[in-house]
Amino acid sequence: MALQLEVSLATEKKEKPDFNKLGFGQIFTDHMFVMDYSEGKGWHDPRIVPYAPLTLDPAAMVFHYGQSVFEGLKAYRTRENNILLFRPDKNMHRMNVSNERIDMPQIDEAFVLEALRELIKIDQDWIPSAPGTSLYIRPFMIATEPYLGVRPSHSYKLVIILSPVGAYYAGGMKPVKIHVESKYVRAVRGGTGNAKTAGNYAASLKAQSEAKVLGYEQVLWLDGVEGKYIEEVGAMNVFFKVKGEIWTPALNGSILDGVTRNSVLQLLRDWGLPVHEKRISMEELQQAHANGELEEAFGTGTAAVISPIGELNWNQHQMFINGQEVGELTMKLYDTLTGIQYGEVEDKFGWTVKVL
Amino acid sequence: MALQLEVSLATEKKEKPDFNKLGFGQIFTDHMFVMDYSEGKGWHDPRIVPYAPLTLDPAAMVFHYGQSVFEGLKAYRTRENNILLFRPDKNMHRMNVSNERIDMPQIDEAFVLEALRELIKIDQDWIPSAPGTSLYIRPFMIATEPYLGVRPSHSYKLVIILSPVGAYYAGGMKPVKIHVESKYVRAVRGGTGNAKTAGNYAASLKAQSEAKVLGYEQVLWLDGVEGKYIEEVGAMNVFFKVKGEIWTPALNGSILDGVTRNSVLQLLRDWGLPVHEKRISMEELQQAHANGELEEAFGTGTAAVISPIGELNWNQHQMFINGQEVGELTMKLYDTLTGIQYGEVEDKFGWTVKVL
Ligand SMILES: Cc1ncc(COP(=O)(O)O)c(C=O)c1O
Ligand SMILES: Cc1ncc(COP(=O)(O)O)c(C=O)c1O
Repeated sequence: MALQLEVSLATEKKEKPDFNKLGFGQIFTDHMFVMDYSEGKGWHDPRIVPYAPLTLDPAAMVFHYGQSVFEGLKAYRTRENNILLFRPDKNMHRMNVSNERIDMPQIDEAFVLEALRELIKIDQDWIPSAPGTSLYIRPFMIATEPYLGVRPSHSYKLVIILSPVGAYYAGGMKPVKIHVESKYVRAVRGGTGNAKTAGNYAASLKAQSEAKVLGYEQVLWLDGVEGKYIEEVGAMNVFFKVKGEIWTPALNGSILDGVTRNSVLQLLRDWGLPVHEKRISMEELQQAHANGELEEAFGTGTAAVISPIGELNWNQHQMFINGQEVGELTMKLYDTLTGIQYGEVEDKFGWTVKVL
Repeated sequence: MALQLEVSLATEKKEKPDFNKLGFGQIFTDHMFVMDYSEGKGWHDPRIVPYAPLTLDPAAMVFHYGQSVFEGLKAYRTRENNILLFRPDKNMHRMNVSNERIDMPQIDEAFVLEALRELIKIDQDWIPSAPGTSLYIRPFMIATEPYLGVRPSHSYKLVIILSPVGAYYAGGMKPVKIHVESKYVRAVRGGTGNAKTAGNYAASLKAQSEAKVLGYEQVLWLDGVEGKYIEEVGAMNVFFKVKGEIWTPALNGSILDGVTRNSVLQLLRDWGLPVHEKRISMEELQQAHANGELEEAFGTGTAAVISPIGELNWNQHQMFINGQEVGELTMKLYDTLTGIQYGEVEDKFGWTVKVL
């Protein structure tokens, strides 16, 4: 049975914010996409409606047992006033990978992407145009059945909301200071690390807060089994340039398969650079640093695209990287990726999808 | 500043369900307790209001980053028509332990317990009286701030809802078949296993579903580091009687500090039985079983109180316990604990709290 998208437009539109003062994820557009799932019936009533609160029974399972997955991607306004998405099929697919792990129903990836395109068209005036700004897109899916037994919910809601966001590097690109976490663990093999599910983020907050007190902006997670091997940063995958070669942790089941990570790997290989997806111990990285071989380090993720790492703090080791300057490769990756995203650089991999 | 509880009663009461056909956690009473937290202001507006849906912005952080903790306890109607709570201070305290781990604000345990007593008094007609029935109490706390950045929320809601529940062993006590989980992991040291937080339960669903397909009712989790040591069952701690001695996994940071577990330990020690809180490997347990030394096994939790385990399936080993019959000690613990809870057995530890 084919799903039919219904559209009901807001009669009153919100006032637009000052597009020069956008932060992240606090302002939302006039509309949202909603679709319901019920056992037996499947997905039904896909609709674009005015942005409004969700009304849920206090016993709705998402509040109690955290059945919840989400995605994050962006729409970019080009100089020619086109609107581009960056590899949105990857996000739709990853949502289904997360759904599988959290025992939630699969979505029709193509249909939801089509609905997203419609939503963006309707709220296109909300997409800012200043360099580095974009429209952040947040699809999420939650368990709605009012029931306190521990089992998968029989009903769900898929929602997509949109938020105009400012440039991540409004004050210029600045390397971050990162605390390597030895006390708390975010994920372990056999767990939910490779799913984009709510609980992973709840589990990470305490470590982030403690790192902040120590003066660090982010946390680098180590593996949950031995506490030795590098996993990922809060909302970014990580890369290291060591003696001209590039290392990144392999997809081992406990880290997220980042869309930016995947794109960076393709670019690096296209450029003929030696890339190793492998298990990387902090010991090994610290040794490389001590030998003066750690040339650059950066995180990759939708929010920042590329985030240079200027300092890593691991137990007694305070490791400064590249004199806390943005590295050459880091910069080239940032310029190339954002260039493709904003339609300024040739998209030879066919990554962008034109909405308008 | 002392909090003042406001009460607004429902003008229309719901029809009571058939108290002989109560299930678990699907029917809710006429009222609920709600209290709000906002940064700077702290907890405010504690109130008992008619049971009603929660209205939350789609960007409310609980949906995305799973900042959510909960508790579960029961109120019991005695033969003399008194209403008793069982060690509710333990649940209030554990909620704060969970809050700490998930970086959520602490609650005033005494105040919330007092508010709960008021709520129960107001909805006392909802407490069933048939043997084994009770009123299940679900306090939970969720992040409500509409913001997509990953950091602790600046606002929260604490809610308590009540649900009359049927006897767990309506058809008589029957030993459960349990699958020992070797593929999925629920928690690891440094993670959130000892917090009663939503994400832990989301992480457990897939394994439960797969075990169900194999014909098992529950999953026994092993440690996340080595996959060797016994942790707990989905919503129960576990105990084993081996050659007259009682073993239970020690509180190692990755299992829940169960109120029932704690009570069972006190009873066993009071009875002069040798009790060992220790690290228990499946290997060791299987060996004891092979030697005919594993005499009884049972789970402990608020829902079932004591749940006899009749079969454990671990890799190739299908271990039947006590001829799949309810063991003598298992039965004695069940009778004693439920006897205390329903006011039929002397409460020598001062565990029960009279509401009415
Ligand atoms: C835990 C985690 N790792 C990595 C990433 C980077 O993934 P992507 O490049 O798809 O944004 C994110 C953010 O989305 C994340 O939340
Ligand atoms: C994971 C887990 N372990 C153990 C228990 C048993 O704890 P309690 O005896 O406090 O109900 C529960 C249920 O509350 C639980 O959810």
